[in-house]
Amino acid sequence: MTRHYALLIGLVVGIHHATFAQNKRLRDLGVKIGILPTGKLNAITDVAGVKVGQTTLNAGDSIRTGATVILPHDGNVFQQKIPAAIELGNGFGKLAGYSQVAELGNIETPIVLTNTLNVSTAAAALIDWTLTQKGNENVRSVNPIVGETNDSYLNDIRGRHVKQTDVIKALQTASSGSVEEGNVGAGTGTVCFGWKGGIGTSSRKLPALLGGYTVGVLVQTNFGGVLEVAGAPVGVELGKYSFKETLDKSGDGSCMIVVATDAPLDARNLKRLAKRALIGLGKTGGIMANGSGDYVIAFSTAYTIPHDSKSKFEEQKLLRNDDTSPLFLAVIEATEEAILNSLLMAKTTKGYQGHIVEALPVQKVVEIMKKYGKVK
Amino acid sequence: MTRHYALLIGLVVGIHHATFAQNKRLRDLGVKIGILPTGKLNAITDVAGVKVGQTTLNAGDSIRTGATVILPHDGNVFQQKIPAAIELGNGFGKLAGYSQVAELGNIETPIVLTNTLNVSTAAAALIDWTLTQKGNENVRSVNPIVGETNDSYLNDIRGRHVKQTDVIKALQTASSGSVEEGNVGAGTGTVCFGWKGGIGTSSRKLPALLGGYTVGVLVQTNFGGVLEVAGAPVGVELGKYSFKETLDKSGDGSCMIVVATDAPLDARNLKRLAKRALIGLGKTGGIMANGSGDYVIAFSTAYTIPHDSKSKFEEQKLLRNDDTSPLFLAVIEATEEAILNSLLMAKTTKGYQGHIVEALPVQKVVEIMKKYGKVK
Amino acid sequence: MTRHYALLIGLVVGIHHATFAQNKRLRDLGVKIGILPTGKLNAITDVAGVKVGQTTLNAGDSIRTGATVILPHDGNVFQQKIPAAIELGNGFGKLAGYSQVAELGNIETPIVLTNTLNVSTAAAALIDWTLTQKGNENVRSVNPIVGETNDSYLNDIRGRHVKQTDVIKALQTASSGSVEEGNVGAGTGTVCFGWKGGIGTSSRKLPALLGGYTVGVLVQTNFGGVLEVAGAPVGVELGKYSFKETLDKSGDGSCMIVVATDAPLDARNLKRLAKRALIGLGKTGGIMANGSGDYVIAFSTAYTIPHDSKSKFEEQKLLRNDDTSPLFLAVIEATEEAILNSLLMAKTTKGYQGHIVEALPVQKVVEIMKKYGKVK
Amino acid sequence: MTRHYALLIGLVVGIHHATFAQNKRLRDLGVKIGILPTGKLNAITDVAGVKVGQTTLNAGDSIRTGATVILPHDGNVFQQKIPAAIELGNGFGKLAGYSQVAELGNIETPIVLTNTLNVSTAAAALIDWTLTQKGNENVRSVNPIVGETNDSYLNDIRGRHVKQTDVIKALQTASSGSVEEGNVGAGTGTVCFGWKGGIGTSSRKLPALLGGYTVGVLVQTNFGGVLEVAGAPVGVELGKYSFKETLDKSGDGSCMIVVATDAPLDARNLKRLAKRALIGLGKTGGIMANGSGDYVIAFSTAYTIPHDSKSKFEEQKLLRNDDTSPLFLAVIEATEEAILNSLLMAKTTKGYQGHIVEALPVQKVVEIMKKYGKVK
Repeated sequence: MTRHYALLIGLVVGIHHATFAQNKRLRDLGVKIGILPTGKLNAITDVAGVKVGQTTLNAGDSIRTGATVILPHDGNVFQQKIPAAIELGNGFGKLAGYSQVAELGNIETPIVLTNTLNVSTAAAALIDWTLTQKGNENVRSVNPIVGETNDSYLNDIRGRHVKQTDVIKALQTASSGSVEEGNVGAGTGTVCFGWKGGIGTSSRKLPALLGGYTVGVLVQTNFGGVLEVAGAPVGVELGKYSFKETLDKSGDGSCMIVVATDAPLDARNLKRLAKRALIGLGKTGGIMANGSGDYVIAFSTAYTIPHDSKSKFEEQKLLRNDDTSPLFLAVIEATEEAILNSLLMAKTTKGYQGHIVEALPVQKVVEIMKKYGKVK
Repeated sequence: MTRHYALLIGLVVGIHHATFAQNKRLRDLGVKIGILPTGKLNAITDVAGVKVGQTTLNAGDSIRTGATVILPHDGNVFQQKIPAAIELGNGFGKLAGYSQVAELGNIETPIVLTNTLNVSTAAAALIDWTLTQKGNENVRSVNPIVGETNDSYLNDIRGRHVKQTDVIKALQTASSGSVEEGNVGAGTGTVCFGWKGGIGTSSRKLPALLGGYTVGVLVQTNFGGVLEVAGAPVGVELGKYSFKETLDKSGDGSCMIVVATDAPLDARNLKRLAKRALIGLGKTGGIMANGSGDYVIAFSTAYTIPHDSKSKFEEQKLLRNDDTSPLFLAVIEATEEAILNSLLMAKTTKGYQGHIVEALPVQKVVEIMKKYGKVK
Repeated sequence: MTRHYALLIGLVVGIHHATFAQNKRLRDLGVKIGILPTGKLNAITDVAGVKVGQTTLNAGDSIRTGATVILPHDGNVFQQKIPAAIELGNGFGKLAGYSQVAELGNIETPIVLTNTLNVSTAAAALIDWTLTQKGNENVRSVNPIVGETNDSYLNDIRGRHVKQTDVIKALQTASSGSVEEGNVGAGTGTVCFGWKGGIGTSSRKLPALLGGYTVGVLVQTNFGGVLEVAGAPVGVELGKYSFKETLDKSGDGSCMIVVATDAPLDARNLKRLAKRALIGLGKTGGIMANGSGDYVIAFSTAYTIPHDSKSKFEEQKLLRNDDTSPLFLAVIEATEEAILNSLLMAKTTKGYQGHIVEALPVQKVVEIMKKYGKVK
Repeated sequence: MTRHYALLIGLVVGIHHATFAQNKRLRDLGVKIGILPTGKLNAITDVAGVKVGQTTLNAGDSIRTGATVILPHDGNVFQQKIPAAIELGNGFGKLAGYSQVAELGNIETPIVLTNTLNVSTAAAALIDWTLTQKGNENVRSVNPIVGETNDSYLNDIRGRHVKQTDVIKALQTASSGSVEEGNVGAGTGTVCFGWKGGIGTSSRKLPALLGGYTVGVLVQTNFGGVLEVAGAPVGVELGKYSFKETLDKSGDGSCMIVVATDAPLDARNLKRLAKRALIGLGKTGGIMANGSGDYVIAFSTAYTIPHDSKSKFEEQKLLRNDDTSPLFLAVIEATEEAILNSLLMAKTTKGYQGHIVEALPVQKVVEIMKKYGKVK
């Protein structure tokens, strides 16, 4: 998150309210990231069982915020915990739930993303959700997982407009299938590289020879730097990038990254996987600036860890260290593409105090892609 | 925190509702911990400027909980942040605010302790408190620090009875001077070594030759193990300790430890200081069991870090690594004594579902102290 | 390790060359630590398959050093790696091999302990040992694990007298069965609490109800603080302890702790186990002073991880988190007792520059034990 | 480091012994990385006081190795330590010295890079060097810093051909000014992206408005992935990249990264700086594969920390957190460029067992640069 919201867009000049009838994802522009094939939907939901739900709050002049939830499986997540790890890129953020995941290697609630000042709201909602689920009548301890970025340039963040019911609604309406991107859910009011950011997703499906596993990524983008699209210097070409002229704070901001995989990894290897997502962030031009909260939450759907068990043991069939590298490449590629999708799918937005953040000008991006040999 | 509340007290038998007209702190029994002198009050408030506030919720049959707050200084903590570090002993807990402290090395709110399911409530209260403080009109990002233990054996924790107003009240009424111990604030419903736990505090004042600094500790005790008092095997003598007969979970539980010092340490050395507090925990017989949330939050009052500054620099006069060891000894001693004070100052308590937790039987402890040469 | 060797013994006065015909371990004095039973030998070798080898260099006026090796199993450790973790108590030390263990969760050589300036010698020896073992003809990468403490008060450490052949000899002669303690191997020249330290060991065997596992500990003791024996203030009673009169560096020094268990733990839970050993250190009065290198290396013998495998998977049957707590208690008790054994089994030693370090005066300790009700 | 040396080059086919009369650095080809200006030499030695020394062992059929040393200042580094931090990208490596740097925040020897099996040799040489320096007559503890990569495809690594005298020679002949790149020192036998790697360097000089500081980077490159040059997909275009056809281990290998800056940072912010270097690695196509030892050692030359001091304090004027972000961008850019320089400056090499590793075909790279709009 950044507390330098006001400066984040300081470079925005000459806004022309261009919007596009229909946003397109990166691949729809003919641009590919990396060498690995995507999953069917090119979304985190390509990992079987994963669901995404979003509540978008877009009201009046000043409310541009929301919540995005990721459910690892259909069951009772508290009773059937999932192996997980969290990596801190830059820890200037308010993520709830870190230490217990680090200690125990698992997650026991869905994951919620929202704005900085509503983390406690979302955490309370996850506690409610868990306590009232069937089978949890005796639960008296819950570790809610909530990430955030700071949407205060477009959103009246001090109003803390996300309510517990908004989070519950996102949980209740979560579904598999395509994931809405751009100005939705927790991405409704975010800003990325000086352009409108938001929610983005992508996935990779490893060839059978590399294990055949799927890696899916979902991001909430709200950070700065020097934008690159598939290696082309889009930020410089468009004349908008951090530190262009002054020691502003335009590199600040945050990126929440959620990684799902069906590969059978334990917490240690999930943490390694999570760490590589930060390279994907870096390849888009992110720098993990001082004011950023860049976090990666990675989980595996390959097995669950029962809350109660008659056995003293867990029997696991885990991927060997030696076979993890293709997953590392997959998460780098999917993270880079998810971030770019979040930009391309976002729309020009006017919000708090009349602030306007333009959508990334797709036509110009396409031209730059051509100039740099990325599309024909 | 523990989710094995029910087992925590499984060993409690033959409760006789003994209460004492007047609890006494460890030193009042004639028992000393360690070799260093205490501060004037033998409390965290011996560190100049530190204030403690507590709201105790003790209502009806089932509400036994509350909030304890620690303010590092009288000013606006967001605008004048304090150097700080957090050490994870065992991370089975819901501490809010960890990652930003780890990244930036400072704390920007008071510290609140409460019960497990009210962390989000307390975090919301700290956000309110910060947003509405004079001078914070433009603040749009706050990193609240909230620790917890699980008081669900004596408290109807699922009712989440701590309200934001309770936390605000504790902040508003915080004061320097003596600190109430035992069944107060966040310690109202906690259990420690199978006896009634609670809030405890202690301090050490280094001799001038060792630097002259003060180290103060405040604890919220809710954990198990094999109780030792000043090295005497009180748990065994009283026949109540973890793993006595079965693989119960009686070692579970949590301990929140807050450490204040006026020694000029940066975040790196504060983290080293924090780590030593866990030895103090261990000397009372704590084992940092699987189900424990054992956390140490350490801060220095020697200097503040302005939120905004015209200078690009911070000028600091820090204690050299070589001179930190006496502080390490001080924090070990003060933590051990604070935990023992929390037990000695607590009273037998009846709460949720009629559960009763006895106070540590002081007379018997005194006898054991005599048997083991700890008092004459 | 400490670089303040000269001060370490600054408090030693009135040495009377008392030596005892026969040293005794703590239990032989009638003193018990904790509530759990020991293994058969009360040694790290109670964990089936573990072997210990030691080379003692005790020559002329000034050579008081050596090497102690721990082999986790009889086979080729490189080809059959062992799950492992390393915890840093205080990192002022020169341990070789840390990062790879942290990353991969395993150890691929035996563990060697020696003096500070011979770590590179011992690492080279482990590389030799590994490269020349049958089956390792194509090995071109080895991660040697070497810990150290600084024996420079009694030993001419700058002479670096440990040779690769000394380490190899310890590896070749390692055996199961009883472990020699006191002035042997890597403990030949070490100092602990101002008295002669050295090698010590202890173990715990959990009752069947708690899992039935064995935890064994071996220590190389070379640190300061305020000695306590089974909770009795021996350091104070004997008038020798850190910070007694001045800001000396007598708390400095180091403790290497090696933990073996047959419980089926992965690297994450082994790291948790390792962390608890530091509480055992603290219970003897250690403070992890600024100049200390306090490290815990923990490994499991329950399964091995093959270097090469036709399978892409490892199948493991691991102990659940919930059942780890008794192991935590076991490692605390065994570490405390191993440290005390190292002191009790050491002998008064004269070495480098005529320095003399007295053995802990057992007769006085027994008297103190009586005074504090620890023996009858 | 990788233990899969043999596979590392498995994709090399159709080698034509093309060598170029004169290698060129990336900027000499007209390609720029990033938006910040370089220092005068575009080398780590742009940071005033930093010196680099290299010993190249290039003998017979099979010896292709060496040592590269970095001296932070001209004085006695043990007596005048430097603030420092080490970040682990992927910890599959044998770096010596990690824990003490993490604990104390400083480095007390020069930094040496060499091959995997000669780390102990180089560490012993650094101990010698330190013990025998004037003023160190009483030093009895040294924490040598040695990094490595595995050059065993081209070098007879089991022969451990680097001798202590080779390291001492590099220390004695270190100089400021230009740094030799490619097949020199510790880079003599390394392989990167399937092409000949080696030593590379680059720097950035921040504009006065961003602080005016210099950040210099030196790398030893020996890793795999999918090579990108300034965002252009060179690996794919040349048909050589990891996981192209099989689950090989061609992504394995290692990268040692040394970062110097004259910005006044303490260890905490140096660790943050170090972490960003890994993004520079990622932008060249590195993935921090399972078998990689990717480490970043960062130090500041802005002040020194005296080993002995009459004062109990260190007075420091440190850059505020808020002003660190431009340094983060600088280290990303310099690391990316240093890696590319290491490739471009390397020459086709024949070594151990007749293995040949081609230099990156510069002419083809230039063509690809044109195709992707990177040069005109």
